[in-house]
Amino acid sequence: MATGLQGAQAEPKKSVTIVLFSGDLDKAIAAFVIATAAASMCMKVNIFFTFWGLNAIKKKSGLIKGQNWMQKMLNIVNYGHARKLALSKLNMMGMGPAMLKTMMSKKRVPSLDEFIKTASALGVGFYACEMSMTVMGLRKEDFIDECRDVIGAVSYISIARDSNVNLFI
Amino acid sequence: MATGLQGAQAEPKKSVTIVLFSGDLDKAIAAFVIATAAASMCMKVNIFFTFWGLNAIKKKSGLIKGQNWMQKMLNIVNYGHARKLALSKLNMMGMGPAMLKTMMSKKRVPSLDEFIKTASALGVGFYACEMSMTVMGLRKEDFIDECRDVIGAVSYISIARDSNVNLFI
Amino acid sequence: MATGLQGAQAEPKKSVTIVLFSGDLDKAIAAFVIATAAASMCMKVNIFFTFWGLNAIKKKSGLIKGQNWMQKMLNIVNYGHARKLALSKLNMMGMGPAMLKTMMSKKRVPSLDEFIKTASALGVGFYACEMSMTVMGLRKEDFIDECRDVIGAVSYISIARDSNVNLFI
Repeated sequence: MATGLQGAQAEPKKSVTIVLFSGDLDKAIAAFVIATAAASMCMKVNIFFTFWGLNAIKKKSGLIKGQNWMQKMLNIVNYGHARKLALSKLNMMGMGPAMLKTMMSKKRVPSLDEFIKTASALGVGFYACEMSMTVMGLRKEDFIDECRDVIGAVSYISIARDSNVNLFI
Repeated sequence: MATGLQGAQAEPKKSVTIVLFSGDLDKAIAAFVIATAAASMCMKVNIFFTFWGLNAIKKKSGLIKGQNWMQKMLNIVNYGHARKLALSKLNMMGMGPAMLKTMMSKKRVPSLDEFIKTASALGVGFYACEMSMTVMGLRKEDFIDECRDVIGAVSYISIARDSNVNLFI
Repeated sequence: MATGLQGAQAEPKKSVTIVLFSGDLDKAIAAFVIATAAASMCMKVNIFFTFWGLNAIKKKSGLIKGQNWMQKMLNIVNYGHARKLALSKLNMMGMGPAMLKTMMSKKRVPSLDEFIKTASALGVGFYACEMSMTVMGLRKEDFIDECRDVIGAVSYISIARDSNVNLFI
């Protein structure tokens, strides 16, 4: 930041970089609320999906993912996509997410699916974490089309260090 | 940052912005330890309470909050205020928070209640998240007086993008 | 940031500061993946271990830690060191961490133990949180040698406010 020529004359475009580590519905929604708000203010926003956070961008259909039995097992237990995430609290055997979704929809708050579409339309960058994918046996084809690239931690840091707002969610 | 005239001559006042998303006692205390430390160093500190984090600033008394049965039910299960939060680990049916409180008080570490008062006295800004309040059916009157304003994600971003330290807790 | 003389001519060395609050294996690994990536890019990296995050740098051997029965009890229940941390999800009575470790080792991803050694060799600073140590009855001797210093929240803020990337994990 403030790398403009001649002092800080030309204010550089502000940016937000979010690491979405959590696979919880409420945390994913919080990440997308912040991401879409920032993008609507013309800021550059990038989300780096890692570990359980990859669930938010997994495709809904398809075979059990993973290349060996251990990965397949992990991907069964860790089954998820944008419509299936649990809450970090009060999950109540799946009743919590349903209640939250109903309450959000009554108040016209978009669903995670809608947030993903809006964020993508606003130019938010979606990046999947290479190392997590390798460990879990996931491939680029397992993710929704909005996820443009697979990057590693070094690329994430290159983006994050020039961002004004960095969050780990 | 570094938006001063003539280069970076006049160092702007440094600031900290915290999103308190979690309703866990230990995380709320961590947020307030950081907030009061920064405020005592004359930094500008703002805390944005969202989702379960709203529990930390709920008033202790009053009727069951919420405007319909689903919100009321969520607010019963999600019952909380500064003296009632659970731990993120080792909650042990409520014994964990009691032990932590006793150990903190033995070592003269302030309680969350005291941290809130200190933070407010030091000028820390308390903001409740509008969207979470709408979803949970909470109104400004449901929060302690220290919570001055209700703001949305866009206002949060406006504050966060000029902060030196941004944390999501 | 951008405190160089004559505008922003001399770009200051970029830096990363991480608060590791969580005692979960997956979150600790995420912290160390980011830390070692940044350090390998010649950035200055500091990790501030607080609350359950202290488990990641506890020594493996020794007596039960703590100075009174409450602290001893907390340290028994909260038993942990780099090889014993649980997962934030899918712990499955300890099977989750074993699976993750096997999968990581198959893919040649280093273990937490190895990450700690690599980070230390790359010059990553390890700091233990004074207040958490006091509350839990832990002393500097209870931590691995890589942990150079014990600091408080004010010192953390002094480091964090000049960092380009701040994360709370």
